[in-house]
Amino acid sequence: MDIATLRKSHPDHWKKATAIRSLTLDAVAAANSGHSGMPMGMADVATVLFENHLKFDASAPRWEDRDRFILSAGHGSMLIYSLLHLTGYKDVTLDQIKNFRQWGAITAGHPEYGHVSGVETTTGPLGQGIANAVGFAMAEEIQRARFGKKIVDHFTYVIAGDGCLMEGISHEAIGLAGRHQLGKLILFWDNNDITIDGKVSLSDCTNQVQRFKASGWHVQEIDGHDPEQIDAAIAKAKTTKKPSMIACKTHIALGHAAQDTSKGHGALTDADQLKAAKEAYGAPIGDFQVEDDVKAAWEAMGAKGAAARAEWEARFASISERKQAEFNRAYALDVPKKLGGVVRALKRQVAEGKPTVATRKSSEMVLEVINPVMPETVGGSADLTGSNNTKTGDLGVFDVDNRKGRYIYWGIREHGMAAAMNGMVLHGGMRPYGGTFFCFTDYARPAMRLASLMKIPTVFVMTHDSIGVGEDGPTHQPVEHLAICRATPNSYTFRPADTVETAEAWELALASKETPSTLVLTRQNLPTVRTEYKQKNLSAQGAYVLADAEAGKRQVILIATGSEVSLAMDARATLEAQGIGTRVVSMPCMELFAQQDEAYRRKVLPPGPVRVGVEAAVRDGGWDRWLLGERGREAKAAFVGMESFGASAPAGVLFEKFGITAENVVEKAKDLLG
Amino acid sequence: MDIATLRKSHPDHWKKATAIRSLTLDAVAAANSGHSGMPMGMADVATVLFENHLKFDASAPRWEDRDRFILSAGHGSMLIYSLLHLTGYKDVTLDQIKNFRQWGAITAGHPEYGHVSGVETTTGPLGQGIANAVGFAMAEEIQRARFGKKIVDHFTYVIAGDGCLMEGISHEAIGLAGRHQLGKLILFWDNNDITIDGKVSLSDCTNQVQRFKASGWHVQEIDGHDPEQIDAAIAKAKTTKKPSMIACKTHIALGHAAQDTSKGHGALTDADQLKAAKEAYGAPIGDFQVEDDVKAAWEAMGAKGAAARAEWEARFASISERKQAEFNRAYALDVPKKLGGVVRALKRQVAEGKPTVATRKSSEMVLEVINPVMPETVGGSADLTGSNNTKTGDLGVFDVDNRKGRYIYWGIREHGMAAAMNGMVLHGGMRPYGGTFFCFTDYARPAMRLASLMKIPTVFVMTHDSIGVGEDGPTHQPVEHLAICRATPNSYTFRPADTVETAEAWELALASKETPSTLVLTRQNLPTVRTEYKQKNLSAQGAYVLADAEAGKRQVILIATGSEVSLAMDARATLEAQGIGTRVVSMPCMELFAQQDEAYRRKVLPPGPVRVGVEAAVRDGGWDRWLLGERGREAKAAFVGMESFGASAPAGVLFEKFGITAENVVEKAKDLLG
Repeated sequence: MDIATLRKSHPDHWKKATAIRSLTLDAVAAANSGHSGMPMGMADVATVLFENHLKFDASAPRWEDRDRFILSAGHGSMLIYSLLHLTGYKDVTLDQIKNFRQWGAITAGHPEYGHVSGVETTTGPLGQGIANAVGFAMAEEIQRARFGKKIVDHFTYVIAGDGCLMEGISHEAIGLAGRHQLGKLILFWDNNDITIDGKVSLSDCTNQVQRFKASGWHVQEIDGHDPEQIDAAIAKAKTTKKPSMIACKTHIALGHAAQDTSKGHGALTDADQLKAAKEAYGAPIGDFQVEDDVKAAWEAMGAKGAAARAEWEARFASISERKQAEFNRAYALDVPKKLGGVVRALKRQVAEGKPTVATRKSSEMVLEVINPVMPETVGGSADLTGSNNTKTGDLGVFDVDNRKGRYIYWGIREHGMAAAMNGMVLHGGMRPYGGTFFCFTDYARPAMRLASLMKIPTVFVMTHDSIGVGEDGPTHQPVEHLAICRATPNSYTFRPADTVETAEAWELALASKETPSTLVLTRQNLPTVRTEYKQKNLSAQGAYVLADAEAGKRQVILIATGSEVSLAMDARATLEAQGIGTRVVSMPCMELFAQQDEAYRRKVLPPGPVRVGVEAAVRDGGWDRWLLGERGREAKAAFVGMESFGASAPAGVLFEKFGITAENVVEKAKDLLG
Repeated sequence: MDIATLRKSHPDHWKKATAIRSLTLDAVAAANSGHSGMPMGMADVATVLFENHLKFDASAPRWEDRDRFILSAGHGSMLIYSLLHLTGYKDVTLDQIKNFRQWGAITAGHPEYGHVSGVETTTGPLGQGIANAVGFAMAEEIQRARFGKKIVDHFTYVIAGDGCLMEGISHEAIGLAGRHQLGKLILFWDNNDITIDGKVSLSDCTNQVQRFKASGWHVQEIDGHDPEQIDAAIAKAKTTKKPSMIACKTHIALGHAAQDTSKGHGALTDADQLKAAKEAYGAPIGDFQVEDDVKAAWEAMGAKGAAARAEWEARFASISERKQAEFNRAYALDVPKKLGGVVRALKRQVAEGKPTVATRKSSEMVLEVINPVMPETVGGSADLTGSNNTKTGDLGVFDVDNRKGRYIYWGIREHGMAAAMNGMVLHGGMRPYGGTFFCFTDYARPAMRLASLMKIPTVFVMTHDSIGVGEDGPTHQPVEHLAICRATPNSYTFRPADTVETAEAWELALASKETPSTLVLTRQNLPTVRTEYKQKNLSAQGAYVLADAEAGKRQVILIATGSEVSLAMDARATLEAQGIGTRVVSMPCMELFAQQDEAYRRKVLPPGPVRVGVEAAVRDGGWDRWLLGERGREAKAAFVGMESFGASAPAGVLFEKFGITAENVVEKAKDLLG
């Protein structure tokens, strides 16, 4: 549908959509950067969605039963900022629009969760939003089953571009949505034929309609500028039991000289062309100008949902107080009161029983006591359930005919799993955790980074954490992955030494509200090193003294994590037998240790004694700070770890061959003592 | 087709396929680990392929025009080891089969490139092999166009499992192959309905046939145990102009008690069940036993290709000596003689002209002189051509009707691009480089790791390397990615400071034969810091003294990389003006600096002066070793960099707000001096 026809046939709609286009053009021009074309192309779809379908209340952005609207094509951020500003979200003022992409503004270059009240997830890295949306839709299904349709009953809408659909993660997300018949997930494909490099056909010839159908989706094809077609398609999509894809044929940068070109994808800043576009729209020419009646119409959309929200609140008040409290607790990311007790009981039990088990098995033991008292947990694995030990008896399996199931067979989709888990956390009311081999954090990495950036407490359960993997060889043996996790801001990397520390790590991961956690667990069995029961969560300080030298005799400090803590204890026994006073520091979480005050850090790592770090990974993983002190000159130090990739052989042989042994630690310490 | 029918109808075929199954069962049982079921399921397909179609000569595993055979489902490594042993590859002795997965054996848990002569690529991380295969097939097309069909004319076969097809990377690979009509790429899907967690239907309901068709593939569906159907399908696939997918319905662990179950996916070690399976096959019961006539038949297959190879060698001898030399040079990964000259000429020119340009632009300037003299380079970008500056004038665009084109529009497929580039290098004769934003190394990471592990010199061109990205914000601003790259064994991370260092980095990246390189380049303009022409490649030593204090007056050493080198020079000017003797060390490649002898390292970083490192990234990126010395106690030190994610604002504002300024460096240095 061309502009002239649209203006004539749907004048009211046209004006509203024009407001988005004008604000976008002005904001991008003012910032002299950004992406104009996408919001201009999808303005009609967004207008119809917000006007006729989206359940929301601009005065209550966090209303739990709102429909979710996700802009997977995050570079088109001015689309969402325009919508939120126009409909009256209080934080998205005109000043914020004018300060698009400037220091201190909440209107960042790409929509960022936590900055803007109406932004459901951070997007920009393409494809992530689609996979987040799958998590939102799963969360909705699970909670609807748990709390009932009168409390949880909403749609998840997502706008995706050609880039999103080319990224591999889209395949994983689409497959999951199809498999689980996520009927309340509705995806709009901004089918504009344009990418940054030129026509889509330069790089892709995929028949997206066929592709989505092949994965079990309901598909419609429409003119993405025709309000009636858009409306009818959304109405239809809401009724299907399958996830819905609506292929919206659009013109990128509609009405601008750069329409339908890759130039139109970027920042359109030419003043004359901008004016000409506004003239073609019949829009006011002034900067950031929206006619009063148009703004009023948008604000009415923003206010319309208040009634539905009031009804919802009445319904919510009608359920039992216990249920209300549970619902609110989960949305507040508070742990249940019982959590501390069950964790401590397990700690006491294992300190007494001293089991020799792999920490992946320890993790299962912990989950067996946590999952029953924490109904918002949802477990899963990327097709390694038996290896990751993520499934406990009580969870049930999430499926089309069992929406209450709390275990998800994610399939061989590490990336999609991680991003969908992020979506669940963002939805609210859920505490998902998911497993794969630690080496395959590589596949999940873009979503793991976004969890850190968004400040959400997703939990990644990463087993098979070193050459301890053994025969599977270097493709499956992480050596640099601890370094990767620890180098990422706002993340906790827990590498527990035994079942006690694993229980403490889980407690901390679930108590965290703003930081994602990676639990790094062994394949191989480990002895219990925390053989004395302590009520206190010692891992909360990141590192602590596990065993010490006699007063005044300390010459050596051994610092170790995970599977190497027991090895350090063995080395200590040898050194002490030779009269060399030795402290062992267990350091399950470097990031938490870094957050302690200096007094505590110096108490654990006093200057003077030589230090040997030991970890079956590369030294780059944050070690030097603890070995050498941040300003240097603190101690003589050495490190026992990996300097290369691993190899394929039984695990015991590998530790021997790569020199990660108590003998080597002893030798290094004595060498430093001279 | 069931075993009884097969044995009766195709007795010769059956015995050959049985040899694979028996060796697999015995090797996995001996190792007490591994994956039995996949080789047992795909033995019939592999046997027909090797017997009737695959062009290979077991006595010349690196024959350049062999068909390539890639096992994307790498956990089924005993399939390829069995095939190579049976057909007579000299390195794959029976002893190697017996030592499957043991220390020192070449028969690693997953097939590793460089260990076994007939293994074309390292697989195991699922989906990689499919994307590698796309690169192989592209390389074949490009070289066929360049050298002619009589020199280059072969197929690329790949076996993929359900896991490979669920991974997102498969979507990117399939899309690329379809778009470019890679007709000589033939993929077998081991359609056995089983994953580790259970039935495929637990996690996926994708109609793979429809899916591949949607991406432009030719698809056939066959019984994967019927030799006639297999043979006919391969014959047909070889004639189509589209890439071919052959869906092979198979039984995992055929003939074993665990057939068609997820148990059959893993290690089948029960002695009685093993014996029962061999009895069902009618195979010899003894360990590692293959009947002489069966082994002879396999060896005949391995020898059959010698004639074709001799013919090829005659054809090769018939082309011009210049062409032969060029072909051999490229396959040897030798750079052309002219390379050094053009790089030096550019260095001289920019040292004189002192351009202020972004290093991504510097990179383009370098490529403009390299590409014309190095015809084996193939450039590309994941839909950021204009931003990555990867396209030079002479390359031409690779397309269906221009196979000579040396530039590839990869689309929004960072992961697929990286893995396909690996495939091109592995194919031989090609030096691919490809670009995206440095932040999106996250997407490409699994393939980048494999390049390091495989010891192949793929070149990743990563632009927009810090908060210098500016307004796009933290989703697009790397802070931890230098740490990630540097923590990965066997990789070069070049962060050049100006055009001269960029030229040197390119020269080193292309001279490298066993190490992949990541070129980390700025979006923003930088002044030329190497204003004096030096013929020598100073970056080759990883770090060098760019500017020094007067003899005897050195109190401070500033160490910087990339965009922060000019900032360090500014800080030096201030310090020197205040009478504080200051050295600036430019450190474009930490990994190369680490490879220098200690004498050189101490010459560049002598103990004594205080040290300030400056890099717009986290300190964890390998800094402490250079700031503090490996054993500590070397110097007082500080670091100016990032401690959090970035933000959305103009780049200049961000450097100011995050304190990455010359003033801050000066202050830190003076603070250390006390």
